[in-house]
Amino acid sequence: MQALILEHAGKLSIRDIAIEQRLGPDDVRIAVRNVGVCGSDVHYYKHGAIGPFVVREPMVLGHEASGVVMAAGDRVTHLQPGDRVCMEPGIPDLRSRATLEGKYNLDPAVCFWATPPVHGCLMPEVVHPASFTFKLPESVSFAEGALIEPLATGMQAADKARIRPGDVAVVVGAGTIGILTALAALAGGCSRVIIADLVQEKLDIAATYAGITTVNVSQENLPLRVAQLTDSWGAQLVFEASGSRRAYANLFELACPGGCVVLVGMPPQPVTLDIVAMQAKEIRIESVFRYANQFPRALALLGSGKLDIKPMISGVFPFAQGIEAFERAARAEPGDIKVQISFS
Amino acid sequence: MQALILEHAGKLSIRDIAIEQRLGPDDVRIAVRNVGVCGSDVHYYKHGAIGPFVVREPMVLGHEASGVVMAAGDRVTHLQPGDRVCMEPGIPDLRSRATLEGKYNLDPAVCFWATPPVHGCLMPEVVHPASFTFKLPESVSFAEGALIEPLATGMQAADKARIRPGDVAVVVGAGTIGILTALAALAGGCSRVIIADLVQEKLDIAATYAGITTVNVSQENLPLRVAQLTDSWGAQLVFEASGSRRAYANLFELACPGGCVVLVGMPPQPVTLDIVAMQAKEIRIESVFRYANQFPRALALLGSGKLDIKPMISGVFPFAQGIEAFERAARAEPGDIKVQISFS
Amino acid sequence: MQALILEHAGKLSIRDIAIEQRLGPDDVRIAVRNVGVCGSDVHYYKHGAIGPFVVREPMVLGHEASGVVMAAGDRVTHLQPGDRVCMEPGIPDLRSRATLEGKYNLDPAVCFWATPPVHGCLMPEVVHPASFTFKLPESVSFAEGALIEPLATGMQAADKARIRPGDVAVVVGAGTIGILTALAALAGGCSRVIIADLVQEKLDIAATYAGITTVNVSQENLPLRVAQLTDSWGAQLVFEASGSRRAYANLFELACPGGCVVLVGMPPQPVTLDIVAMQAKEIRIESVFRYANQFPRALALLGSGKLDIKPMISGVFPFAQGIEAFERAARAEPGDIKVQISFS
Amino acid sequence: MQALILEHAGKLSIRDIAIEQRLGPDDVRIAVRNVGVCGSDVHYYKHGAIGPFVVREPMVLGHEASGVVMAAGDRVTHLQPGDRVCMEPGIPDLRSRATLEGKYNLDPAVCFWATPPVHGCLMPEVVHPASFTFKLPESVSFAEGALIEPLATGMQAADKARIRPGDVAVVVGAGTIGILTALAALAGGCSRVIIADLVQEKLDIAATYAGITTVNVSQENLPLRVAQLTDSWGAQLVFEASGSRRAYANLFELACPGGCVVLVGMPPQPVTLDIVAMQAKEIRIESVFRYANQFPRALALLGSGKLDIKPMISGVFPFAQGIEAFERAARAEPGDIKVQISFS
Repeated sequence: MQALILEHAGKLSIRDIAIEQRLGPDDVRIAVRNVGVCGSDVHYYKHGAIGPFVVREPMVLGHEASGVVMAAGDRVTHLQPGDRVCMEPGIPDLRSRATLEGKYNLDPAVCFWATPPVHGCLMPEVVHPASFTFKLPESVSFAEGALIEPLATGMQAADKARIRPGDVAVVVGAGTIGILTALAALAGGCSRVIIADLVQEKLDIAATYAGITTVNVSQENLPLRVAQLTDSWGAQLVFEASGSRRAYANLFELACPGGCVVLVGMPPQPVTLDIVAMQAKEIRIESVFRYANQFPRALALLGSGKLDIKPMISGVFPFAQGIEAFERAARAEPGDIKVQISFS
Repeated sequence: MQALILEHAGKLSIRDIAIEQRLGPDDVRIAVRNVGVCGSDVHYYKHGAIGPFVVREPMVLGHEASGVVMAAGDRVTHLQPGDRVCMEPGIPDLRSRATLEGKYNLDPAVCFWATPPVHGCLMPEVVHPASFTFKLPESVSFAEGALIEPLATGMQAADKARIRPGDVAVVVGAGTIGILTALAALAGGCSRVIIADLVQEKLDIAATYAGITTVNVSQENLPLRVAQLTDSWGAQLVFEASGSRRAYANLFELACPGGCVVLVGMPPQPVTLDIVAMQAKEIRIESVFRYANQFPRALALLGSGKLDIKPMISGVFPFAQGIEAFERAARAEPGDIKVQISFS
Repeated sequence: MQALILEHAGKLSIRDIAIEQRLGPDDVRIAVRNVGVCGSDVHYYKHGAIGPFVVREPMVLGHEASGVVMAAGDRVTHLQPGDRVCMEPGIPDLRSRATLEGKYNLDPAVCFWATPPVHGCLMPEVVHPASFTFKLPESVSFAEGALIEPLATGMQAADKARIRPGDVAVVVGAGTIGILTALAALAGGCSRVIIADLVQEKLDIAATYAGITTVNVSQENLPLRVAQLTDSWGAQLVFEASGSRRAYANLFELACPGGCVVLVGMPPQPVTLDIVAMQAKEIRIESVFRYANQFPRALALLGSGKLDIKPMISGVFPFAQGIEAFERAARAEPGDIKVQISFS
Repeated sequence: MQALILEHAGKLSIRDIAIEQRLGPDDVRIAVRNVGVCGSDVHYYKHGAIGPFVVREPMVLGHEASGVVMAAGDRVTHLQPGDRVCMEPGIPDLRSRATLEGKYNLDPAVCFWATPPVHGCLMPEVVHPASFTFKLPESVSFAEGALIEPLATGMQAADKARIRPGDVAVVVGAGTIGILTALAALAGGCSRVIIADLVQEKLDIAATYAGITTVNVSQENLPLRVAQLTDSWGAQLVFEASGSRRAYANLFELACPGGCVVLVGMPPQPVTLDIVAMQAKEIRIESVFRYANQFPRALALLGSGKLDIKPMISGVFPFAQGIEAFERAARAEPGDIKVQISFS
């Protein structure tokens, strides 16, 4: 079976690899259709490692995927061959304390696609637990299906924020996760989202959505703009989705008394926070690590038409040109949101 | 000053009445523009009482209102003459335990327009506390402004439900409050709302909104329909907005394990509930009494265009024809949602 | 292997039975020590069924148990032979939606000891999943260990209530579950618990605990007493633990504005509730179905000495006299809280 | 009327001062009994300012107080002359948005005793709003009554943490607020509190309470100790009550997956936090600014005997020796928790 393989830092191949994939009674076998290229895939490609996770042997990349069920194990009841599906890429130990407490994403034993030493899904077929495989609504394409994984992170952020109907949110950072978080927050109950970035091309994409107000922080003062738009009260919710050191300096200024800041972006270094400023407003901070139980929520919003992610798909490359897809993603062009690879 | 007055059960007049309205330092004087006719106004008109609240002397009706600020007291900072506003009709004792705990709607000493012996606002001018008077966004008309009071009840229901992004909701009852609750739930984060009623005209109005699925319970089995639309899991949220005795019989069947039922409708008699069925799903029940802190949330959603209530306004009568407005509201025509009276 | 078996309604035996118990890699084999006799065991003994659960073949009874680990499967890391443990009797499908959402108790596929057709644990040895087997702290006896199962229901009730520090609670019903709920609520943050019953013997046991105030409702007016003890504000929390039809009539009168009623008792028939009275205080109702993730919490409170359940153990019978234990439990003497059976 | 006055930084007097205190209809006049010396009082004494709050004119100090009602305004119903009371020192604008939302402590217009330019209560008589004056239970002394103000901060921290029954908590810092937070957390539902400090005398006081485990961080590794005491899972709750820069470095290491960190201490400078470590456990951070609605909760716990703060009172000085009380408090002896001044 051919796969897109990271041989070592800086070297990708499309070549045959032997991976045993036995169909267990609770599994499904899936013909892969679309796979998104994630920032983490690109990071492994460039650097061969993310923090403690080091690529020591050739590894198949990819973890944002949709496909079609080819076969279902004996105990699987909710899926059957021919079903169009998307897949949640992290499988926890179902017996762990974290899983039983409903936060399986925090189980340290999670087995996650394309996180060494676990292979990803950039190959024609995968076997996956049926419990982590979800039917796509009729109206949702394979390309959108492969976007649900990053959307799920935005959904987790929106869920953790505990949005109350009509809340105003600020999203700092208009990258893929920032825009998806903004869309999840809007669909999830906010009246308005103010999104901030330095890159006008990214803001222009965000600005096409009703309910989103953009602020280019190279030209405008964000706290001032938020004050204007909220009668000087501040936003109930602030999502940090840039990971940029400077963004943390005035986060609390953006929030209203009793507001919430959700940390989605991952800063490369520890950051400095003004605790006394936080306390003066009794701000709550939530943090996000991937997602748990968000795929069905994301699919419900896509299926009802309330959330439209089609404009996020910047380009789809056939599998044979998968390496070009990585190179384009690695260039990180300002107008690119998501590059995908398609088997079909 | 002329006002629309309930003389006693069954008898309305438009006539002069002397009501002292002194402008205190924290008050505003408002030229009234639109006033909606509420079911409670009609009930007082027909029966002269609601439960323990008995109309013993002539009382001005009306509590759903918008207007224009004419004058502001010395300590008022957020409003000035000329501001277009809507008014929250219940004023609590600000020193009460309920108010200090953030649930001022539950203060037994609340003073509420058109609840005997307190006069309502169907007159050209009212004086009102500035803290309970809210500026209308540019895009929100006086007619919409006068609809915010009933919408606030729907918002309170949506808020109490603690919607999580993508939840599916069922609303039982497509009257004014049912439809406004459905709209609040959709804007507040639900992916889809299934609304049920016996009256097709009401369902037809609800069906004009994207995201709303209607079920005529005289023709379809509601639990079955909900099961079909939720992969047999049930809805995360069920709003009871009919007050109809029969509706309570299968409420728990509509909800998913761990779901929530919000009781908005007010049944005239105690109702029978199957506690063991409720427990088998560990259902939570919330209940709603008017609203607290919902006007700013409703205005945020209207101002951003996320929530459109214009189709709810079935007719607007000039003040001189106010009694005809009451007669139309009293007929409760199936296609009527909200009748208003306008000063202008 | 000898076991205590319900042959059919009204007929118990202690006799040999062949039950295959293979030790899987995630299981432990346990020498059973103490087993409590639960109301449900007695109900099966007397009536042969509970609702839809009908005893059609001889079934081993018992589901409240402690013991000693004899052997551990290959993948078990947190337990080893010799460990003193207690066991959670309900095992869900770990792949189910309810489990992944953290509410495994609501999984319809739960396999629960001594719920037909599943055998219970009144036998010398059982094999059990290690994830549902918990080490007893040094200071906790086997008798107490076998009381953790019913205590877990009280813990679930206390948890669902979302107690805030210093809340006052009322518990209606001073049976086993009522008293254990009262103890869980006190240990869980309440300042005071008012417990009500008709049976003075039960109240006398409850009254031995600091922080519990008893009210004999055959002699005192409960709403009046609660008003006196709460400056006429009402209790923040009300736990219904009697299942008695009459108890539901004035539940809302006991609660303060914005209070919470937790339904623990299971009334044999649907009950009548005054919805408008509930709404006037915007009361929240929570319901309880067994428990999820409560064993570690109960053990933490017992281990620290904060919760003392020893006075709940009314009598311990050797296994050979197990049928006498059932007969005593079936007599339901007013001063009896919990009868146990011991292997040792 | 004589009062204890801060003339300017470093200079206290006890002398006559003319302060008009008119009894309004919603007020009570109170003969002051005990007043605690707070760290903020000492800070104003030493430095003449706290952040933006600068003492520009002589100011009466003191804000932790109990007393006896001498007279009650016309509209006061819950208090009468002779009532023993304690007083909440911060009075918000009752019409503010923060107050109406139930978080009156966050109202920027709060008027707080002994925060310039507002006088404190170290004088024989004060007039205070009845809504912020609370009756002491019989069993609570005036000395304890004057400790409720700092206890309320601990209660706010425990409340914000959303303790679930049986949670394990770590408190970093065993000063007055640290110990009071530990006691609030224990009474509020924790099974056990691990408290850490460098000063053995402070830990020795904490260690006298059942349920508290002390760790001297100059001798023991705190994360390691917490791991041992929690089966390597971590604590559900971590309260930072030291404000010490170094404490923030390993806060997240102490918490379990999905745990909560409550920031009570106020570090003099912004601190550095490892966001990625926080995200890996999806930790929630709450922050505390004084308290709202905590006095009744604290009094309920003291009145029921569940919380004992008597050992916190290190010394009580007669008013005539009030300056000596300040000098002792300013020495910050390691064994001192709270010094008070008494009128009687």
